[in-house]
Amino acid sequence: MTPGEISLQCPIPAGSPSHITMAHGSGGRFSADLLRHVFLPAFYNPVLAALEDQATVEFGASRMAFSTDAFVVNPLFFPGGDIGKLAICGTVNDLAVGGAKPLYISAAFIIEEGLPISDLQRIAGSMQLACKDAGVILVAGDTKVVDRGKGDKLFIATSGIGRVPDGLVLSIAAARPGDRVVVSGTIGDHGIAIMSVREGIQFETELESDCASLAGLTEDMLRACPSIRCMRDPTRGGVASALNELAGASKSGIKIREESIPVRDEVRSACEILGLDPLYVANEGKLIAVVPKEDTENLLTAMRQHSLGKNAAVIGEIVHEHPGIVTMKSVAGGERVVTMLAGEQLPRIC
Amino acid sequence: MTPGEISLQCPIPAGSPSHITMAHGSGGRFSADLLRHVFLPAFYNPVLAALEDQATVEFGASRMAFSTDAFVVNPLFFPGGDIGKLAICGTVNDLAVGGAKPLYISAAFIIEEGLPISDLQRIAGSMQLACKDAGVILVAGDTKVVDRGKGDKLFIATSGIGRVPDGLVLSIAAARPGDRVVVSGTIGDHGIAIMSVREGIQFETELESDCASLAGLTEDMLRACPSIRCMRDPTRGGVASALNELAGASKSGIKIREESIPVRDEVRSACEILGLDPLYVANEGKLIAVVPKEDTENLLTAMRQHSLGKNAAVIGEIVHEHPGIVTMKSVAGGERVVTMLAGEQLPRIC
Repeated sequence: MTPGEISLQCPIPAGSPSHITMAHGSGGRFSADLLRHVFLPAFYNPVLAALEDQATVEFGASRMAFSTDAFVVNPLFFPGGDIGKLAICGTVNDLAVGGAKPLYISAAFIIEEGLPISDLQRIAGSMQLACKDAGVILVAGDTKVVDRGKGDKLFIATSGIGRVPDGLVLSIAAARPGDRVVVSGTIGDHGIAIMSVREGIQFETELESDCASLAGLTEDMLRACPSIRCMRDPTRGGVASALNELAGASKSGIKIREESIPVRDEVRSACEILGLDPLYVANEGKLIAVVPKEDTENLLTAMRQHSLGKNAAVIGEIVHEHPGIVTMKSVAGGERVVTMLAGEQLPRIC
Repeated sequence: MTPGEISLQCPIPAGSPSHITMAHGSGGRFSADLLRHVFLPAFYNPVLAALEDQATVEFGASRMAFSTDAFVVNPLFFPGGDIGKLAICGTVNDLAVGGAKPLYISAAFIIEEGLPISDLQRIAGSMQLACKDAGVILVAGDTKVVDRGKGDKLFIATSGIGRVPDGLVLSIAAARPGDRVVVSGTIGDHGIAIMSVREGIQFETELESDCASLAGLTEDMLRACPSIRCMRDPTRGGVASALNELAGASKSGIKIREESIPVRDEVRSACEILGLDPLYVANEGKLIAVVPKEDTENLLTAMRQHSLGKNAAVIGEIVHEHPGIVTMKSVAGGERVVTMLAGEQLPRIC
């Protein structure tokens, strides 16, 4: 029986939705279900099954990282960026957190009839600036147009190729008890910047998306601290979902401390107004790293010298207890389980 | 001034549309305008400017082909295939016509809320069979969901990576006067299969899309005939648009003979009913090759031994006269200019 045949016969588990819902795009539990029940049975191979942010494969005598993402963010333009900048940074970051040096990018544009060409020019210009900043070249592209009402202005799918240095192996399965969990800066900025535009929330100072290329930061981190176990960029589903994936893959527990997690005051206030938890809000220029305890200070020093890592902080550690489960000690002192995002929280955030 | 800045300042030429129209997705003249006025000024680099079906770049000590395509075909399922098979074959073929051996594929899914998950399973199964057939592995993916009415069931963007054999250089700029133009089989099958579903046209025998991976055929062709100048797969915009791109890039003229072009009777009849010219109708499992005159028979023999090349035929030649222009001698004896597709002919054909 071929994998293709398996997929045709794989039943949708009882109680699961039979049709796609917005929650399937959340980056949380429903997205994971879709992967487990549809895509993995169809395409099963060890590279895909590793569930890293990027595929690492052999190419000639070298190792290559390869990644893809579709971007459907609404609105197209938001404080701190636009769909084009997001599409470049998002794919660059998936390569960078795998330890790869990003080199080449492709972009496929799905445009709704009626989009002003000047918007497309502005977005293409912004993509090129993001490419320059990340040190990548956009070498391949495609454009399709769909009828009015059959798309939503513009969707962009980018793919990226990077080179993985010889000998470097990062894996979310590699985290070990005792390791420290580090975050590169304040969390939730991207999601709240988008939601504030959608919901019309005003801040005293404009809150911007953190959308940025992490390739320079990851290069500095790996140079200073080659013992890093893995890195992950907590986009859709936020830090909570990324940590749950990490706990699952490494079969370890993770304990984090709420008071250690950097959150901007504006983000905290907006989360209270909107009924959101910053742990589940998307980031587009932040990363989580797992590092052996003894190398933590060394890593933090290197991160804080980079403009994108100046608020880097240890937020928790990998533990023997409760394998696969993430817990958080709250500011008030209690400890609670931090589950993966369930349902839809912030649709079309990236 | 950076390329990014240039793009922001590049005015839309007077008389051009200021908003995206369906014609911008046709693969014809309007698509070329969009490339020239928006994407090339923004992203200018020699690889992109070569306007091949795939980018060829250095990777370590090897040469890599990289390509991307978005698929928005309507309907999702059609005789001979579905959007999933199309997405794999389309990207594989862009690599194959560059002489590359396709290796890895990524797929990004943009799903409209409400799509039956069973449709997604069927499409994923069909993609996996197409991957197996083409000898590629799908190693990276992404899924996004958009609200009902903001998409159209499913769009898929695929990217592909292939290895270009050492020493092989194919280029649409390499065609020289005297060279022959070969097509691998009957033209227009894909476009007419899609249109027949949309328009409810019945044939005595079901007309199927030619959607297929050309990787095996191109491998056989290059083994038998290493002197091939270039290959191209005539998808959107059809054979006419592909030949015009070839004439433009090689600064040569092309003369084709209508009577030599293989067209199925059903396709010819449907084209008459629908008011279409088969030269502009999309193909998804055909290629055009340019080959030195003296190697033509050798190439045809190799092609005809492959199931996807058994109707291969010489359809014309490269000439000194009228550089950049394609002409056709009709069955009736007259000669006319074959221009690039202008306006929209068959929207959302791939």
